[in-house]
Amino acid sequence: MTRRDWKCNGWGAEGVRYDLGPQREAFLEWLGQRLGTDPKGTRWPSVALGDVPLPEGRMDEAALQAIGAALTTGGTVAVDREDRIRHAMGKSLVDLFRFRQGTLPGAPDAVVHVTSREEVAAVGRVCAERNLALVPFGGGSSVVGGVEAVDPRGRPVVTVNLLGWSGLEELREQDGYAVVAAGTLGPDLEATLNPRGWSLGHFPQSFEFSTVGGWVASRSSGQQSNQYGDIADLVAGCRLWTPAGDWQTWEGPVSGAGPDLREVIAGSEGILGVLTDVTLQVHRLPQPFRIQAVLFPTFAEGAEALKSIVDAGLRMSFLRLSDGEETAFYLKIGHPNRWKDLGLAVLGCLGFGVERSVMLLGTEGEPDEVARATSEALRIAKRHGGLSLGQGPTRGGHRERCRHPYQRAARREHGTAIETHETAVPWSRVEPVRLAVRQAVDEEMAHQGRRAIVMAHLSHSYPAGSCIYFIVIYPADRDDPVAQWRPIKAAIADAAARHGGTISHHHGVGLDHRHWFAGETGPVGMRLIRGMKAALDPDCLCNPGKMLPLPGE
Amino acid sequence: MTRRDWKCNGWGAEGVRYDLGPQREAFLEWLGQRLGTDPKGTRWPSVALGDVPLPEGRMDEAALQAIGAALTTGGTVAVDREDRIRHAMGKSLVDLFRFRQGTLPGAPDAVVHVTSREEVAAVGRVCAERNLALVPFGGGSSVVGGVEAVDPRGRPVVTVNLLGWSGLEELREQDGYAVVAAGTLGPDLEATLNPRGWSLGHFPQSFEFSTVGGWVASRSSGQQSNQYGDIADLVAGCRLWTPAGDWQTWEGPVSGAGPDLREVIAGSEGILGVLTDVTLQVHRLPQPFRIQAVLFPTFAEGAEALKSIVDAGLRMSFLRLSDGEETAFYLKIGHPNRWKDLGLAVLGCLGFGVERSVMLLGTEGEPDEVARATSEALRIAKRHGGLSLGQGPTRGGHRERCRHPYQRAARREHGTAIETHETAVPWSRVEPVRLAVRQAVDEEMAHQGRRAIVMAHLSHSYPAGSCIYFIVIYPADRDDPVAQWRPIKAAIADAAARHGGTISHHHGVGLDHRHWFAGETGPVGMRLIRGMKAALDPDCLCNPGKMLPLPGE
Repeated sequence: MTRRDWKCNGWGAEGVRYDLGPQREAFLEWLGQRLGTDPKGTRWPSVALGDVPLPEGRMDEAALQAIGAALTTGGTVAVDREDRIRHAMGKSLVDLFRFRQGTLPGAPDAVVHVTSREEVAAVGRVCAERNLALVPFGGGSSVVGGVEAVDPRGRPVVTVNLLGWSGLEELREQDGYAVVAAGTLGPDLEATLNPRGWSLGHFPQSFEFSTVGGWVASRSSGQQSNQYGDIADLVAGCRLWTPAGDWQTWEGPVSGAGPDLREVIAGSEGILGVLTDVTLQVHRLPQPFRIQAVLFPTFAEGAEALKSIVDAGLRMSFLRLSDGEETAFYLKIGHPNRWKDLGLAVLGCLGFGVERSVMLLGTEGEPDEVARATSEALRIAKRHGGLSLGQGPTRGGHRERCRHPYQRAARREHGTAIETHETAVPWSRVEPVRLAVRQAVDEEMAHQGRRAIVMAHLSHSYPAGSCIYFIVIYPADRDDPVAQWRPIKAAIADAAARHGGTISHHHGVGLDHRHWFAGETGPVGMRLIRGMKAALDPDCLCNPGKMLPLPGE
Repeated sequence: MTRRDWKCNGWGAEGVRYDLGPQREAFLEWLGQRLGTDPKGTRWPSVALGDVPLPEGRMDEAALQAIGAALTTGGTVAVDREDRIRHAMGKSLVDLFRFRQGTLPGAPDAVVHVTSREEVAAVGRVCAERNLALVPFGGGSSVVGGVEAVDPRGRPVVTVNLLGWSGLEELREQDGYAVVAAGTLGPDLEATLNPRGWSLGHFPQSFEFSTVGGWVASRSSGQQSNQYGDIADLVAGCRLWTPAGDWQTWEGPVSGAGPDLREVIAGSEGILGVLTDVTLQVHRLPQPFRIQAVLFPTFAEGAEALKSIVDAGLRMSFLRLSDGEETAFYLKIGHPNRWKDLGLAVLGCLGFGVERSVMLLGTEGEPDEVARATSEALRIAKRHGGLSLGQGPTRGGHRERCRHPYQRAARREHGTAIETHETAVPWSRVEPVRLAVRQAVDEEMAHQGRRAIVMAHLSHSYPAGSCIYFIVIYPADRDDPVAQWRPIKAAIADAAARHGGTISHHHGVGLDHRHWFAGETGPVGMRLIRGMKAALDPDCLCNPGKMLPLPGE
């Protein structure tokens, strides 16, 4: 399974394109005004795949034969140009810049498409024997450089694509456990579970193009995490190949025996080995998902309401609060409607001005309970100045979130870059981080002589704090977009870190976030992680350079 | 603070004794019949503390002076007999046997009573410089050999008592975060939080005699964990001294950057360093706790009901299901009442026979919500054959759980041993584990020519499974109770492990559980933990031999 039907230099499936509807022209005009550019008049073509320069493959015949011999259940090994390009990196903004410019940082010397956990182990052993770097690759949707095919020690790189080791291995209905092959894509998992009355309930924005193994390796969080938890909460057991041997963790609810090693595997980003199987806690297929919108005069009032709803323990499946900038943005890309314009004018008079912030509340479950939780949540929202907009304005909006990456691609074609960055903080630091990141981006853009739009929303909230997700829209420097991006990324990450934000709530560390990860983890914590890596992968074969520099790098 | 008002060779505070009331005579008679012994006629005296043989202290004057110099905020160092005996071990059944017999496995060579995190670090550095083993000691309530003052490498042992580094350092009300010194005892923490309207909500049975640092180090679980989570869920950040340096983890809700190192510190049992401060997520002080009882014809029906209540996401604070043996036991130790006898006879006719199992459902929170959740839970219970007993039979029973260890002490005086052992499993393995443990104990006791009572209950339940807690009552071999206990312990632990049970849901590993911990963690997982230890404590100073053997041991 090569997934050659997926776009290489963009997001999603070939031939699929989502862009705005009739409001597109007006939106591009507005965008141009805001950024001081001319998106409509700009075209930024992509280098054709055939023209992308590619380093010479370095696999010798003997190594290829050894890998071939390891593939005993139908796997294949590829060294062709297209497979190597497709597995060179992930889908971060920088990755997509580099695909567009034809400036890959490197490429795997071989791509192995495995079809079983035995093949993973056998290929891993070949890599260990021959000192080849091994990069595990699921859907390849990392946005932090997590699958980049570059070894800091300069060894040949074997990328192991796990999409061929896919499917539900076992469903233990009494426990609500699903044992799943690591290469299973989100839609395939749900398509197997749903007819049997179950769902994992994990829907990251990358859902269609990311795998169970990738979710666990990168500590993913889904859109309905308020109800089902983050992926780390759903892992009951793991199976891995590591250079130190095969490993099956204990499987069950909670153990008090020693550190929770499942919480070490979750977020290990392939640096300890390759996840091959995960036992996940699944849920009875819920009632239809419903969503409700509430408008607040300001973000701060909305955030207070959101915290109170979480504190009250109401069973919301999805809670999201957009700040003023993001609320305005979504109004802009919505379908044009004169009544909407009129309504907004009236709201302005009622105190819902430029800082007005929309909250979406999603629920699923037993109808009586949902109705009770919703009415209680709306009561809390009202106490904080919220105005219920009913279900109208958001119908379908939630399911469409998976289309956002497509729309970002459409914007890139017009020379507009859209960077996303997320963090998590205790409640008291939400507003300081939001304002600091905004200011940092504004300063950096002023320095560049350009303008940006900085939007933020809260999602994935907890009693102890919340994730803050930033979307930064700026005019790309088409001569060197990567060099332009670096100080923007640094400005955002520095500002968040200064106020106690983690470098990532659910994207991971990869290559891009190593600097900040080391800062927040501290020298002792980093030493601990290096100790883990040295224990299982002393030769640093596995996803080398991700999360932390190799010794001597 | 030496806590010389605590019993040394028993549980709890000096002068405090809980035993049964008027029903004591009848209970002892029943117990004697069940075990085939004569508890009433048996007296098993304890060796007086003054007669306990103690190894010579090995601290030289220079080391004592160096430690003294490290104590800059009021701490003290003790080498006297009583302090050394008091810090020799924890409070497991075996520990209490050994205190009773006067056969200590060793004793610390010095006991340091620290009063600040700076003193912890300074004493740690002295230990590192002079190659002394360091055992962190909070309330000393470990039941798995977690604080035993023995170094497998034979170095002198310095036990660091943290009770003098106690108190709430900071309460961040906006975040619901309490920063707490590691040596804070449960009652002291609640006494500081409650007047300010907050509670941690963590009430392990050892609550009065265990510390925040001990809870985190051993992955403790409280009686109201269904509502508040286990201690690992409540940790937002940690501060430690390690031989590799001081370490403050990231503090906040959820991070997707790398493994969750807080989940490594929770359960690290002092082998990576000494916890000095913990940031805990606290809760608004709830409404009064209420408890409800339901009787099921069999344990299996009760377990099904319990799982359904958890699955329904009802906000129960406490859920406990006793099996038939335990239900009968609690009826025996309850106050005598003719109406109860009559009621039980009637129930027997209604199908609630010897296997009848009582479930306790505890709630706290907003009264309307509690009422709703309770009525829904009772509806589910009824569907599974449950008969509501109302609040009557359980009034006060919950708060009295902290008295059970005292009552176990009273039984020991009559030659009756009470061992506790707990595990956790997915739902499907609850009954297999329960029955296997029972059978294993019965076989071992038959082999010894004795009889035992094996009771079990479910508590700390999760969507993915449950904790099973066993209480085993047997006639002690007063000649060598430790040698007698070993095969009983092994029989229980082997039986649970055979069916997938972890060696501990909330007691930890210590010395007693190392064998089974290695089994469930597997060679790769053990290698990972050894790598962590080697990274932070290469000379194996910190709590040596706990959780895993030292290299070369």
